[in-house]
Amino acid sequence: MIDLYTFTTPNGRKASIMLEEVELPYNVHKIDITKQEQFTPEYIAINPNSKIPAIVDQETGITVFESGAILIYLAEKTGKFLPADQKQRFQVLEWLMFQMGGVGPMFGQLNHFKKFAPEKIPYAIERYEKETLRIYGVLDKQLADNEFICGDYSIADIATYPWVAIYQFQGLTLDNHPNLKRWVETVQQRPAVQRGMNVP
Amino acid sequence: MIDLYTFTTPNGRKASIMLEEVELPYNVHKIDITKQEQFTPEYIAINPNSKIPAIVDQETGITVFESGAILIYLAEKTGKFLPADQKQRFQVLEWLMFQMGGVGPMFGQLNHFKKFAPEKIPYAIERYEKETLRIYGVLDKQLADNEFICGDYSIADIATYPWVAIYQFQGLTLDNHPNLKRWVETVQQRPAVQRGMNVP
Repeated sequence: MIDLYTFTTPNGRKASIMLEEVELPYNVHKIDITKQEQFTPEYIAINPNSKIPAIVDQETGITVFESGAILIYLAEKTGKFLPADQKQRFQVLEWLMFQMGGVGPMFGQLNHFKKFAPEKIPYAIERYEKETLRIYGVLDKQLADNEFICGDYSIADIATYPWVAIYQFQGLTLDNHPNLKRWVETVQQRPAVQRGMNVP
Repeated sequence: MIDLYTFTTPNGRKASIMLEEVELPYNVHKIDITKQEQFTPEYIAINPNSKIPAIVDQETGITVFESGAILIYLAEKTGKFLPADQKQRFQVLEWLMFQMGGVGPMFGQLNHFKKFAPEKIPYAIERYEKETLRIYGVLDKQLADNEFICGDYSIADIATYPWVAIYQFQGLTLDNHPNLKRWVETVQQRPAVQRGMNVP
C-alpha cells in the first residue's frame, strides 16, 4: 500500500495519475495548502521542503518527495512507463527533467502573475506567457513525429499533461500548436488520467 | 569520450563538475548563449529545447540534455555519486529533483529580476528573494545533521552547489545559514569542483 500526500494541483496530479496508471493500491491524504497544512511538523517530517506531493511506500518503508522522483520510483517499482533500454530510458528522463525544470516552474510563475498576484505586472505576465508559448512550441515540434512525447506513453507524458491541461485556466489556446492539442486530447481520454485528475 | 556542450552558467557547471569528479575524458564545445548559439540547427538537433548543457557519449551514441538527466547518466555510467541502495538512491533523486524544480528555477528568476531585467520590479525581486531564502533554510536544516545533502557526497550536491555558490552575485549572504555556508566551503575545496567551475 502507498500513502499519497497530495492536493488539487498539477504537481499533485502527476502522482495520482501515475498511481492510477500502474494500478497500485493507495491511500489519499489531502494536504490542504490553502490552509497551510504543508507546514505541520508531521508533514515536514515527510517532506522537509513543505510541498506536495509525497509518498510513503509501506512495503519498502521508503518515503519519496518531489513529483519527478515519485514518478521514477513508481515506474521502477512496477516496470511501467520508463523503458529499460538505456537510450529510450534517458530520452524519457531528459523530458521528465524538462518538465521538472521548465514546464512546471515557468507555467507556475505564469499562474502566479496572471491569476494570483495582488498586482498586475505586465512585464512579468509577458515574460512567463512568452516562455510558456516557447515551451508549447518545443513540445509541439516533438509531438509532430511522436504520438507521445518519447514515442510510447511514459512518465514524461504523465509529468507534462497536468500542466498543459490547464491552458484555458491560464487564458491560453492550443490552436496554434496542433500536435500538442492532439496529444492533450489523447492523454485526457485515458481512464486512469481522468481518475487521477480527480484526486483528491 | 564525452562531448559536452556548455556555457558559463550554474546549469552548465553541474555537468563539468560531474565530468571532472568521475574523471571521464571529455571535449568541451562552448555554446555562447549571449550570441544565441543555442538556436543553431546543429544545436537544436542535440537539444530541441535550446538550452545548455547537453552531452553526447561517443561510446554509446546516447545524447542527453537537461543537467539533471546528465548527472543521472554519468552517475550510472561510472557507479559514482548515486548510491545503489534504493532508499539512499531515492533520497539523492528527490533532492536532485528539488534542485531541478526549485533551486535552479527560483534562483534563476531572482537573477533575472535582480540583475538583468530592464526595469526594477520590487514585487518580483521580493518574491524570488524570499523563496531563495526559504530554500536556503530548507538546505541549512538538512545540512545540520548531514555533511553533504544526503549524507555522502552525491549528484544532489553537484547539482546544488553552482546555484548556491553565486550568493554574492545575487546580493545575498549565507551568514544566517551556517550549515549551508560550511557546506559551500567544503564543496568548493574539492579540486574537481574547482576545475569544473572553470569550464568553459
